Amino acid sequence: MNASPSSAATGRPRVVIVGCGFGGIEAVRAIARIDAEITLIDRTNHHLFQPLLYQVATAGLTAPSISGPIRHILRREMRTGRLTVLLGEVTGIDAAQRDVIVAAPDASGREERIAYDHLIVAAGATHSYFGHDEWAVHAPGLKTLADAFDIRRRVLLAFERAERESDLAERQAWLTFAVVGAGPTGVEMAGMLAEIAQHTLQDEYRRIDSRRARVLLVEGGPRVLGAFTEPMSRKALEQLDELGVEVLTGARVNRIDASGLGFDAPDASQGLTNIAARTVVWAAGVAASPLGKALAASAGCTLDRAGRVVVEPDLSLPGHPEIQVIGDLAAAHSHPKRGAPKPVPGVSPAAKQMGRTAAANLVRRLRGEPTRPFRYVDYGALATIGRRAAIASVDVPLLNRQVHFSGMPAWLFWLFVHIYFLIGFRNRLVVLSDWAWAYFSFERQARVVAEPRPAFKGSADPAA
Amino acid sequence: MNASPSSAATGRPRVVIVGCGFGGIEAVRAIARIDAEITLIDRTNHHLFQPLLYQVATAGLTAPSISGPIRHILRREMRTGRLTVLLGEVTGIDAAQRDVIVAAPDASGREERIAYDHLIVAAGATHSYFGHDEWAVHAPGLKTLADAFDIRRRVLLAFERAERESDLAERQAWLTFAVVGAGPTGVEMAGMLAEIAQHTLQDEYRRIDSRRARVLLVEGGPRVLGAFTEPMSRKALEQLDELGVEVLTGARVNRIDASGLGFDAPDASQGLTNIAARTVVWAAGVAASPLGKALAASAGCTLDRAGRVVVEPDLSLPGHPEIQVIGDLAAAHSHPKRGAPKPVPGVSPAAKQMGRTAAANLVRRLRGEPTRPFRYVDYGALATIGRRAAIASVDVPLLNRQVHFSGMPAWLFWLFVHIYFLIGFRNRLVVLSDWAWAYFSFERQARVVAEPRPAFKGSADPAA
Repeated sequence: MNASPSSAATGRPRVVIVGCGFGGIEAVRAIARIDAEITLIDRTNHHLFQPLLYQVATAGLTAPSISGPIRHILRREMRTGRLTVLLGEVTGIDAAQRDVIVAAPDASGREERIAYDHLIVAAGATHSYFGHDEWAVHAPGLKTLADAFDIRRRVLLAFERAERESDLAERQAWLTFAVVGAGPTGVEMAGMLAEIAQHTLQDEYRRIDSRRARVLLVEGGPRVLGAFTEPMSRKALEQLDELGVEVLTGARVNRIDASGLGFDAPDASQGLTNIAARTVVWAAGVAASPLGKALAASAGCTLDRAGRVVVEPDLSLPGHPEIQVIGDLAAAHSHPKRGAPKPVPGVSPAAKQMGRTAAANLVRRLRGEPTRPFRYVDYGALATIGRRAAIASVDVPLLNRQVHFSGMPAWLFWLFVHIYFLIGFRNRLVVLSDWAWAYFSFERQARVVAEPRPAFKGSADPAA
Repeated sequence: MNASPSSAATGRPRVVIVGCGFGGIEAVRAIARIDAEITLIDRTNHHLFQPLLYQVATAGLTAPSISGPIRHILRREMRTGRLTVLLGEVTGIDAAQRDVIVAAPDASGREERIAYDHLIVAAGATHSYFGHDEWAVHAPGLKTLADAFDIRRRVLLAFERAERESDLAERQAWLTFAVVGAGPTGVEMAGMLAEIAQHTLQDEYRRIDSRRARVLLVEGGPRVLGAFTEPMSRKALEQLDELGVEVLTGARVNRIDASGLGFDAPDASQGLTNIAARTVVWAAGVAASPLGKALAASAGCTLDRAGRVVVEPDLSLPGHPEIQVIGDLAAAHSHPKRGAPKPVPGVSPAAKQMGRTAAANLVRRLRGEPTRPFRYVDYGALATIGRRAAIASVDVPLLNRQVHFSGMPAWLFWLFVHIYFLIGFRNRLVVLSDWAWAYFSFERQARVVAEPRPAFKGSADPAA
C-alpha cells in the first residue's frame, strides 16, 4: 500500500520528513512555504522541548508544559492543505525505490510504504549503554516523556520505600541516588535530586530524614561538564558541592544491577568502588537512532563510531542528493567562511539550524540552483546546575570574544533563554509561573505518581 | 514484623486509617487534633479530586491540578509528629488480633502487620463489569489517574489511527466512541468527547474529518442521569443532543470486545444491536473495594449486593465498635432527626461527612461518651454535561424546597462549586486559568501521549 499522494496526481514534489524534534519541525515550517506535498512521520503525537525534560523527571513541571501535540504546533502549516502528519514508526528506507517504510499500526505486520522525491531524516538519538544493554532496566536514561515519568516514579517511590524499610542498610540504599555521566543532563538531574532531598521533602517523613539522602554524580572523565573550559568546570563543581551533590570523577562504571553500581576508580584515594544505590539514572551515553543503520544498508552511506550518518557539506548523503540527514543523527561539519570545517555539536540550536539549511538546500535543488554547505552559528554554551546555580560561555560578537559567567547571573540567563525558546505563548506563561512558585515555596508541583505498583510488585528487581 | 509504635510505648491510642480519599482525609484531619498516634495507609502517593478525573481523561487538565501528594496535603498534620503515612496495599484485616495486614513492598512475600486500637476503613470502590471481567481490557473504567491516562491515550490515538487507516469501515470504527453508562461520569465523558471531535481537533487532520466522529452514550436504564428527576433528565438529554452525543437508552450491553459492543435493545424501534467502536469507556458499574470481603471474613460483618459493608448507625461494625467503615465502602444509613433512616448515596460530600462523624465518634469512645448516629446533610445534586451545559437540583433551606435549574446557570454553579472544593489555593488558580483558556480557545492543554506504542504494537487487540 502506498499512501502518499503521487507527484503525478498533485504535480507537487513529495517531501517526507522523519522525526519532529528541533530539526524536523524547522524543516517542515520552512518547506510548508513552498508548493510541496509534505508528509511528517513521528513515533509520538508531540514535539518535545528536550532541554527541560529533566524538570519533568524531577516533578517540577508537567509534561504538557514542555511539549505540544504536533498537529497543534503545526496547525498553520496543516491549513495549507499540503501537510500530512502521521503517527508511526519508520522501520526502514528503500533508497532505490525512494520509499520510507512505516510499521503497521496494528499487529498485522503489513508495512506501509510512503514514496518521496525528497527525504529529510531527523530521527535523533537514543541512549547508549556502551554494550551493556542489560543496565537499561536498572538505570533509565532521559530522552522521552515516558523516560521522564519512569525516573520520576523511581525517585519519589524510593523515598516512600525507605520510609517503610526497617533495615537500616536497606533504607540507606533506597536513599542513595546515583547519576551516571556529568554532562549537562547529569548535572541538572543531580542538582535537582539534591534540592528535592534537602528542601522539597523536608519534614514530610516520620521514620526517615530526607536530608540524609545521598546524591552521587559519577563521571568517567576527569571533570564535570567537560565541554566547558576548565575554570568553568571548576565553578560548576563548587556549585554542585554547595547543593550537596557528591561528585566522583575518573570513575568508570563497570556494573549496574538491582543493588547499585560498581566502578573502576583510577584515583585510588577516593577508595570507593561499589555503591548500594536503589535509584540510578543514566546520563552518560548517546547513540544515533537505529535508522542510521537502515540508511547505511540502503543508501550505502558511512556511519561514525556513534552510529551517526556521515553527510556531505550540504547535509545530503553521498550519491543521494535527494536524502538529507540532520540533527543528532548526522555526523555533520560546519563550514565557516574562513578556516577548516569543524564537527557540529549535538545541541538543539545546531539541529534547528540544520533543519533550516536542509529546507533551503531542498528549495535550491528544486530551482536547479547549487546547494550550499552548512554553517553552524555557535552562540555559546549554557548549563544549569540548580537553584541560582549555572555556568555560561556566550559569544559576544561586539567584543569579538567569549564571555564566561556563573552563579546567579548565569542561572537567570539560562532561565530567560529557556522561556524564550519554549514553543507556545501559553507554555511560556505556565512555566514561568511554575518556576516562580517553585522558587519561593521550594515545592515541586508534579509529585504525583499514577502507577505506584510496578515498583513494588511482581518482580525480583526492586527498582523495576 | 509489627512496625507501628505500640500504645504502651507512646501512651497514645493507635488509630489506623486505610485509604486517603475524601473520607479518609477528613478523618485524619479531625483525629490529628487529639493526642493519638495515627497511621494512614494508601496504595498511591496522592489524594485525588475524583469529580474532575474525567477532565484528565479528556486531556483538559493535567494530573497534578486535581491531585496532590498526601504528605504535602497533610503537612500540617505531619508536623504534629503523631501521623505516619505509608504507601502500601492493605491486603487483609485481622479483627481478632487488631492488626492491619499490608503487602510487602518487594517480591519477598513478607507481610507487614500494623496494630490498631481503632481502625477506620475508607478504601472506596472500584469498577464492576457485572461478572464480565473480560470486558475490562476493552473498556477501561475511570477511578484512578492511571485509568485517566489510559483513556486519554486511547481517545487521542484513535484519531491518529483513523488518519492512517485506508479502509473506510475500519476508519469509521476508529472514529466511533462508546461510553457505557449514563450516570454523571458517563455523561461528562460523552459530552467532552463530543467537544474534542467537534471543536478541539477540527482541521487538524488531512484524511479524516474529526467532526465525523460518533459519540454514543449507551444506557441500560430508561433515561440519562437517573438519580435526577424526570424533567431534569430530559433537560440533560436535550443538552447532550445539542453537543452531538447520540444517546441510546434501554440498551443493555451483552458483549464488549476488540471490535466494539453489542446489546439488547428492548426498544426495537432503535434497531441497533451492534456497534463497531474501537474505543469504549466503562462508566456503568461500581463495586466496593475487596477489603469489604476481607472485613466480612475477619470481623463477621455483612455485605450488601454491591459488596459494601453494612454498618451500625454510628458507622461502626456490629460487635466491633473499634472498627468504622466510611465512604463508598460503607452501606450506611442517614438518621435524620425526624423520619425513617435513608440510605446514603455514594457521593463525595457523603464520604467527607462520614469521615468527620467517624472521627467524632472515635473521640467520644475515647472519652467514654456514647457515639452518635450518622446524619447526612444533602445539599443537592449537580451534573455537568459539557460547555455551558449542566443540570442542578439544590436544596435551599430558606425556601424549604429544592430548586432545579439547567444550562448556563447550572454550568457556572458547577464550575464555582468544583473550584471551591478543590484542595490547594494553587490548584484552584491553575484549574480556573486552564478552564478560561480552554473555554475561549477550544484547546485542550494535555493532549500529549507519553507512550503511543502499546496501542499499536505486539497485541492482537487493536485497543489494548
